[in-house]
Amino acid sequence: MTAAPQAAAAAPPGAARLMAELADTGRDAARGGYSRPVYSTAEHELREWFLDQARQRGLDTETDRNGVLWAWWDAGHGARQDAVVTGSHLDSVPGGGAFDGPLGVASALAAVDHLRNRGLTPRRPIALAVFPEEEGSRFGVACLGSRLLTGGIDPDKARNLRDPDGNTFADVAAAAGLDPRFIGPDPEVLGRIGTFVELHVEQGRGLVDLDRPVAIGSSILGHGRWRLTVAGQGNHAGTTLMEDRRDPMLAAAAIVQAVRDVALRHPGARATVGRMVPVPGGTNVIASSVTLWLDVRHADDAVTAAVVERIHAEALRAAAAEGCTVTLGEESLSPTVHFDPALRARLGDLLPEAPVLDTGAGHDAGVLAAGLATAMLFVRNPSGVSHSPEEHVEDDDAEAGALALADVLEGLAGRGDG
Amino acid sequence: MTAAPQAAAAAPPGAARLMAELADTGRDAARGGYSRPVYSTAEHELREWFLDQARQRGLDTETDRNGVLWAWWDAGHGARQDAVVTGSHLDSVPGGGAFDGPLGVASALAAVDHLRNRGLTPRRPIALAVFPEEEGSRFGVACLGSRLLTGGIDPDKARNLRDPDGNTFADVAAAAGLDPRFIGPDPEVLGRIGTFVELHVEQGRGLVDLDRPVAIGSSILGHGRWRLTVAGQGNHAGTTLMEDRRDPMLAAAAIVQAVRDVALRHPGARATVGRMVPVPGGTNVIASSVTLWLDVRHADDAVTAAVVERIHAEALRAAAAEGCTVTLGEESLSPTVHFDPALRARLGDLLPEAPVLDTGAGHDAGVLAAGLATAMLFVRNPSGVSHSPEEHVEDDDAEAGALALADVLEGLAGRGDG
Repeated sequence: MTAAPQAAAAAPPGAARLMAELADTGRDAARGGYSRPVYSTAEHELREWFLDQARQRGLDTETDRNGVLWAWWDAGHGARQDAVVTGSHLDSVPGGGAFDGPLGVASALAAVDHLRNRGLTPRRPIALAVFPEEEGSRFGVACLGSRLLTGGIDPDKARNLRDPDGNTFADVAAAAGLDPRFIGPDPEVLGRIGTFVELHVEQGRGLVDLDRPVAIGSSILGHGRWRLTVAGQGNHAGTTLMEDRRDPMLAAAAIVQAVRDVALRHPGARATVGRMVPVPGGTNVIASSVTLWLDVRHADDAVTAAVVERIHAEALRAAAAEGCTVTLGEESLSPTVHFDPALRARLGDLLPEAPVLDTGAGHDAGVLAAGLATAMLFVRNPSGVSHSPEEHVEDDDAEAGALALADVLEGLAGRGDG
Repeated sequence: MTAAPQAAAAAPPGAARLMAELADTGRDAARGGYSRPVYSTAEHELREWFLDQARQRGLDTETDRNGVLWAWWDAGHGARQDAVVTGSHLDSVPGGGAFDGPLGVASALAAVDHLRNRGLTPRRPIALAVFPEEEGSRFGVACLGSRLLTGGIDPDKARNLRDPDGNTFADVAAAAGLDPRFIGPDPEVLGRIGTFVELHVEQGRGLVDLDRPVAIGSSILGHGRWRLTVAGQGNHAGTTLMEDRRDPMLAAAAIVQAVRDVALRHPGARATVGRMVPVPGGTNVIASSVTLWLDVRHADDAVTAAVVERIHAEALRAAAAEGCTVTLGEESLSPTVHFDPALRARLGDLLPEAPVLDTGAGHDAGVLAAGLATAMLFVRNPSGVSHSPEEHVEDDDAEAGALALADVLEGLAGRGDG
């Protein structure tokens, strides 16, 4: 017997076909790609789509008090404990790609179909999860949902985070149906999870270079975000002599270059300024201040700290040279995460052809790893590009990812009595 | 007889007291100072205030088809021709000061009060004018109202200008009560003006250094605005090695520094980048493109052109060094304006103690100078700072300015038969 008849009998929509259903939601005509900030209309539509897909599969859905969506495939005995959980997020960076987040959600649904077609009744319960604000693109703190769930952020700090329009997270969460008084650590929900596995599009060229469709994650680089505000003297662009200026834009430009120079002096470090806001931001106005956001990552947390310290020193020097001042504040910091070695070895047994890769990108799996056995699967991205419309996954690779995830869920959950 | 009883009998509100009535309109809590973009709620309130003040003084008000407000103090014979016109604007840059624009409007009203108190019936008609979008802070083209009136901008180009929210000027003008089909050159309105005199807060330290309250303007530096767009490769800030990047933010930073370096090599030149927008603008995203706006000014239009050409060359070099591309487009360009020498000499006779100063700032008076005898008065600004909340005028200097303007209007309009 060949595999073909089995595949024909199965006829599940498949990860690629599920992804295609999301193709029109949250497109960004100005930036290209997708802008799906957490609790925006677009992300809300995607969340409803997930809940609907889960219900169609007979899964039991719920939204916890931190806004994480859950869909339970209960084991025969019904107890929700020691569950094998998989999932990812549906929010995006501004002008992001289609796959960062949604691929893990679509693959989780497709994997359930595969397991149903295999006639599996799992011994351990299986659950699907969708985490809000993984990108931190609306409220500035990445993995906000998983941080709240695990106690990785103070709920008061979270409630007072503001989006670029000045709305607090408390207000936005309330409008999304949450009670902001009750966000924060949730040991009951967390206690149900035995193992967490997140499938994600690869955000580099590792699998392209190795010519493989799927990899097992080994670690996540430590990373953090800092905000630098350079203050100078706002003034008229036409009447102020070049010699009389204290222009924070020039200091900011020097800082952007120092960020790169410092990163290059620390092998393996990545340091980026991707967001910058001059105030007031008029063409004929010398800025009075410029705020820039810094993203730094390295496998060694001590190097990350040294890079930021060095950048701070260079920023102080650059600001002083322009007669300006600069302040630096940490917005978030996550140490390097090494995924559970025993779980990783088990995944290696289940997926013997999958190479092992680390990643420079943060994920909810990295936050959950602080208290749980977690693992990741990466799916090949032929462009190697991410957080950009050029991010891509071929249909065959998406299917290979969903099958690998099904194999992992089956292996971890085991066959029950049903 | 001393002057005191006359001042007591007059009891006009005075320029400073009129300015105080505007103090709460359009405050910008985020940037500080005032944000009064053209046809915003704040600017609309100021326009209504002006029309109300003019009517209280028995002036005949009208709004022309380009949105310029007019208030006529008709001469005895009633014909609206060869008028002496004074006025300024009520819109501001984002986070601007209180005086840039409104001081000229308030002083015009106060000057009318002074002339009425002097018992003047003008021989030539006197009119007050308020021009929309002088700053160009909403639609990108400075002096848009006077440019439309004089044919200095193609009406089709104006109709299609867009504000930062994507609204066209045509739509915004229609919402403000204009018929956008009929914007453009208006020889009938223009033909009524014999002389135009604009009073304005000084935007530098000339009068502070000379210890005088009021100056006569000699010329306006030629100035223009250009938009540079640097395109690179958007990507993930965590997974993309420093060596693999084509980051337009680094090219933009090099361009900001080149702008200053080029300006310093051309004595008297001013070149500024006060506005910059990275796309998509996420903390954890290497930008795919960065747009920056360039403001360049010099007394010699050939030098302005040479500065821009040199900056363009440096920008091409900086972009290529980062594996990026850059395009440069002109948004507006105004040659250096020398105010009418005969009119300036006449103002010198009327205000013998006023020094003569040029300015680096653009004004509607500069646009009108292309076809009319125009002049300017500047009022001392102790901070020397403009386009900033620190811009300031002392009450006594505001009153000195209004009195000087009254003297000029009386001298130019002459005493009629009334």
